[in-house]
Amino acid sequence: MNPLAEAPRALITGASGFIGSHLIERLSFEGWQVAAIARPASAPSLALLQPVAKVYRYTGQIAEVVEAVAEFKPQVVFHLGSLFLAQHDSFQIESLISSNILFGTQLLEAMRLAKITTLVNAGTAWQSFNSGGYNPVNLYAATKQAFEDILLYYVETAGVRAMTLRIFDTYGPADTRRKLLALLVDTLRTGEPLGMSPGEQVVDLTHVDDICSAFLHAARLLQSKDESRHEVYAVSSEERHTVREVAAIFEEVAKKPLPITFGARAYRDREVMEPWQGTRLPGWHAKISLREGLRRLLLAEKTLPQRS
Amino acid sequence: MNPLAEAPRALITGASGFIGSHLIERLSFEGWQVAAIARPASAPSLALLQPVAKVYRYTGQIAEVVEAVAEFKPQVVFHLGSLFLAQHDSFQIESLISSNILFGTQLLEAMRLAKITTLVNAGTAWQSFNSGGYNPVNLYAATKQAFEDILLYYVETAGVRAMTLRIFDTYGPADTRRKLLALLVDTLRTGEPLGMSPGEQVVDLTHVDDICSAFLHAARLLQSKDESRHEVYAVSSEERHTVREVAAIFEEVAKKPLPITFGARAYRDREVMEPWQGTRLPGWHAKISLREGLRRLLLAEKTLPQRS
Repeated sequence: MNPLAEAPRALITGASGFIGSHLIERLSFEGWQVAAIARPASAPSLALLQPVAKVYRYTGQIAEVVEAVAEFKPQVVFHLGSLFLAQHDSFQIESLISSNILFGTQLLEAMRLAKITTLVNAGTAWQSFNSGGYNPVNLYAATKQAFEDILLYYVETAGVRAMTLRIFDTYGPADTRRKLLALLVDTLRTGEPLGMSPGEQVVDLTHVDDICSAFLHAARLLQSKDESRHEVYAVSSEERHTVREVAAIFEEVAKKPLPITFGARAYRDREVMEPWQGTRLPGWHAKISLREGLRRLLLAEKTLPQRS
Repeated sequence: MNPLAEAPRALITGASGFIGSHLIERLSFEGWQVAAIARPASAPSLALLQPVAKVYRYTGQIAEVVEAVAEFKPQVVFHLGSLFLAQHDSFQIESLISSNILFGTQLLEAMRLAKITTLVNAGTAWQSFNSGGYNPVNLYAATKQAFEDILLYYVETAGVRAMTLRIFDTYGPADTRRKLLALLVDTLRTGEPLGMSPGEQVVDLTHVDDICSAFLHAARLLQSKDESRHEVYAVSSEERHTVREVAAIFEEVAKKPLPITFGARAYRDREVMEPWQGTRLPGWHAKISLREGLRRLLLAEKTLPQRS
């Protein structure tokens, strides 16, 4: 970066989430000024993130988003904020639509008003249940797809240049989500038996550092382009394993067999057996193999206090 | 209809709108029992619609929709309710998403819970700015497309059989919308000069009686099919004219020239010059030519009191 140039500015949503918090550190490391727009409930966790220059408060009002974008004038908006629900209950529909459609639309409207045109958006590989076209795994994925339709309106009418990065499973340090690897780490620690599904479903686990590289890469690609557009890319580790294989690699890296019973549970409804194959983000590749990522994870985990 | 069979039941949203109110009369005429689910603001106009057996109140809560669907147990749901805005203001985004995405999603969730599977949905030809694929004319059309994404989730997971009828311009008696034909009728009455755009945009004007036939036809088609699906069809008059030509036909039918100045106004932003060409609803054709429709309209209008 030219040291005489002013630091570029990124506005980020979903800053308190797993990818968001890592992306903020990375952006800051690369010399960006970062602001977040977040619900008051996220404020405590954001306060721990030193690199955030400013946190704009969002309580659902478009005026808050308009003011944040107009004041901070980001070169790039990273839209990672969403409500993730693997399966929804009826009472959660309103929150799902507010978080995953309304908030993003308010953000695009604020960008239109402030003439900010570069958006990197987080999508999910679950927008395609089978390889190929749109077929949402769950209502969460359907709301993500719905948002992309609205995004296209702003691409066509407000000069927005956007990329949606469709993400598969992610992992890395400081992950508080109760996903596969967290279960394996727990099992490693406690030695207690773990009952799992038959484990033949294929997963694509991408390390969060690689995900952050992809988001930065997408921002640079967009900034090099003049025309409004919406492009959709898969951000895949390019390394695919069944859950059984992941467990075996984990055991190798940990140098310890785990007491796992495969087949103790059923697959969940609409379990994805073979993840989507989408067009890959051009010019970007994951660098951290699963083996290397697991090694780093176990090193990091051993330094953390025992989970309660 | 078999007189011994119980009358089939239709639940309708958007019952107080132009198409909705005509569809209720038609359904009733054809022997259906009709219930509406509507916001309290629509209650006064619904009270005037004799054929409505029951009006379920909707104030935004999913529980209201769930209860309505569970109690009425419709064979077919006609989803016509939407907030139409040709151009939006920022403050209207929340209402647009609530009316055009959230409400419909609540309806689908209620159908899932009650195992009601047949839905006829109203879309708009404006979901395609140019002929061909999705490119929304305005944010309204984008929210309609977004809803179809969510609909597909329920098709895939709840056995829903759905058709979306994409509608062009509509007209007919008792139309309170201030659209092209209303302006021409006013000009005919008052003789006051009317300044219009250059008028070279092509419009597809479908009579509301034909639209109602299309909705009934779609319901019957869906009921004859077992598999869950979402099909999208154009409901077009198959008669396309420029606005100038429409005005000329109007003058012929009215037997009076109108003081119109074409080119007095600019086209609006993203004016649709050539409407979408979509796959037509199989087995249905419009029966009312524009000339015949205008004749009926002028006959009806002459019997109405002068507009204030």
